[in-house]
Amino acid sequence: MSGIITLLTDFGTADSYVGEVKGVLVSHAPGVTLVDLTHNIAPGDVSAASYVLGRAWRAFPAGTVHLAVVDPGVGTRRRALAADVAGHRFVAPDNGLLSDVFAAAHADVVSLPVPDAASPTFHGRDVFAPAAARLASGAALAELGAAVSDLVHLPPRRLRTEGADLVGHVIHVDRFGSLVTNVPGAAVVPGAAVRLGRHTVAVHAAFSDVPPGSPVAYVGSGGTLEIAVRDGRADSVLNVERGAEVRVSAG
Amino acid sequence: MSGIITLLTDFGTADSYVGEVKGVLVSHAPGVTLVDLTHNIAPGDVSAASYVLGRAWRAFPAGTVHLAVVDPGVGTRRRALAADVAGHRFVAPDNGLLSDVFAAAHADVVSLPVPDAASPTFHGRDVFAPAAARLASGAALAELGAAVSDLVHLPPRRLRTEGADLVGHVIHVDRFGSLVTNVPGAAVVPGAAVRLGRHTVAVHAAFSDVPPGSPVAYVGSGGTLEIAVRDGRADSVLNVERGAEVRVSAG
Amino acid sequence: MSGIITLLTDFGTADSYVGEVKGVLVSHAPGVTLVDLTHNIAPGDVSAASYVLGRAWRAFPAGTVHLAVVDPGVGTRRRALAADVAGHRFVAPDNGLLSDVFAAAHADVVSLPVPDAASPTFHGRDVFAPAAARLASGAALAELGAAVSDLVHLPPRRLRTEGADLVGHVIHVDRFGSLVTNVPGAAVVPGAAVRLGRHTVAVHAAFSDVPPGSPVAYVGSGGTLEIAVRDGRADSVLNVERGAEVRVSAG
Repeated sequence: MSGIITLLTDFGTADSYVGEVKGVLVSHAPGVTLVDLTHNIAPGDVSAASYVLGRAWRAFPAGTVHLAVVDPGVGTRRRALAADVAGHRFVAPDNGLLSDVFAAAHADVVSLPVPDAASPTFHGRDVFAPAAARLASGAALAELGAAVSDLVHLPPRRLRTEGADLVGHVIHVDRFGSLVTNVPGAAVVPGAAVRLGRHTVAVHAAFSDVPPGSPVAYVGSGGTLEIAVRDGRADSVLNVERGAEVRVSAG
Repeated sequence: MSGIITLLTDFGTADSYVGEVKGVLVSHAPGVTLVDLTHNIAPGDVSAASYVLGRAWRAFPAGTVHLAVVDPGVGTRRRALAADVAGHRFVAPDNGLLSDVFAAAHADVVSLPVPDAASPTFHGRDVFAPAAARLASGAALAELGAAVSDLVHLPPRRLRTEGADLVGHVIHVDRFGSLVTNVPGAAVVPGAAVRLGRHTVAVHAAFSDVPPGSPVAYVGSGGTLEIAVRDGRADSVLNVERGAEVRVSAG
Repeated sequence: MSGIITLLTDFGTADSYVGEVKGVLVSHAPGVTLVDLTHNIAPGDVSAASYVLGRAWRAFPAGTVHLAVVDPGVGTRRRALAADVAGHRFVAPDNGLLSDVFAAAHADVVSLPVPDAASPTFHGRDVFAPAAARLASGAALAELGAAVSDLVHLPPRRLRTEGADLVGHVIHVDRFGSLVTNVPGAAVVPGAAVRLGRHTVAVHAAFSDVPPGSPVAYVGSGGTLEIAVRDGRADSVLNVERGAEVRVSAG
């Protein structure tokens, strides 16, 4: 074990919910190190949660436990999961939140029992946090529940070829207004043209290769095509939202 | 001692204030684990701070030190307190912030001296943090100040019976727009009708028992009546703010 | 070493970026304690970052590593720095972010090499975090790069005398709407008049010395003149923004 539990939720940071979860974690796993990934996933945005977790977990050492709770279906019959992927442990609802993690490597997954005493509106505190603490304390996955395999996945991010073009989508808009797409970086070669709506954007090595205020396409830090505006916001300048289609034509 | 200091403030997260407090804590109590509860209490909202702290502290192990600074009266003659409640330690201004904690169990309380060198606008750094660090390092409460008993309390949250009805109030609106009330969960039985303004809401076990977009009343994770809108915001749909009256009629 | 790495960025808290940086830190420096100063510096606001870091670092023990990434020039030829100042270590871009730190004491500074594999848009993860982890693990500054001395500094904050008046500027507006200036506290004596635009504000020991709603000038917790409105926001009441001129006349 790495002795680390990371936390990713949509609980925000103004209520008691994050504190209650942390209290359960340090009570049940004394000495554990808590690392906040984010609590500012938009309420119920499972897709964003999957994307953010899918990037962040790889940076941590094996043995880390990742507690991820964006759970609009809490209290329904949706399952609660614990998973082992590439030596990392995950605890999350079975609603697609782990889609990006599951896409990375083979997963062993168990279904967590929900105690009768668990609040039907706060499994983060009463189901997921105790399970994360047990894993961080060295419990084997099989001790937590029975193996399951028919997991909920988010719809795959579509990527298609049309003649010589590769057509993908904006899958994330970051704090800086930069547009992250699902187009693999290998397609992003100098001379290629990137089209979003009415705009055509040229590929450069970094957004610093264009003048301030200009749009630029480049391979982002997640390994896929991104579009930014230097010293500006691509989402506003190009009037683009998550889900928008992006087309890459060879140069 | 648990080796943990939790932090709850209204300092926000864009200034240097939280960092300065943390620096004092780790300087004076090396090796301590800092756990952020929240720094996003609305500026000066002592009532919200009391509510959030009153829920979160119970999840931590005994021996934890809770540093809570929402302090619109900083620099006035309001006292600075350290308290021992059920094996937990609290450091906070004497302005009602600890009302919910004090309501939970017997409290031993001392008044902290304010050094001449303390900034009159930043007792969080210069008075409360050093006291929290001393407690986390094993100091006894009595070493920090003289016992006091005439403490400031927030006005009690009113709850009254009118015939067969129980009438309480919305005491918190959470990030999801859900309405937390002070009506004890025991009154929230199937068949009961919950009225807020012109709306009547039915009781269910969880908000997942109604269709998306519908309001629902249930026993929340804090043990009291809550009203939510499934996949929506009860505060906007029902047009209700903190302080609104809620009436529960037996079914 | 103190075993502590502090983090200050403009990454916000809704993306994966902070998590990725933390993952690198705990992977490369196992057992280190991470302390968030802030991730909510406005995007690219190097001046605000310098101010906040310049206040917060002093509260930490010697041996602390401070990782500060507000880096609008990432991917350009701007240098990446590691520095030793008064026994503290700093890792940051060479864009003026360390101006306030450098103003405090002598600095030994080295330039960090940028590996070919580093993402041109995420040196926080690929350049600065690994360097911070090495320093936290005990590496000497000289192991990280070659010494440099011609550093980028922000324009100095202007302070001038005009007859008996001292004229400075608002250098920070905090969460509470209070106006922090660069006028030294020594000039802030009882009877002095503080003028901002059309307003004249009297000096008091603390903002609690005036009635609610009234403006007040005082020596702030950073040691310089501040102007606040008791139980209100000075920025809105006085209609003042960062950069505004403030004039202090002896009483």
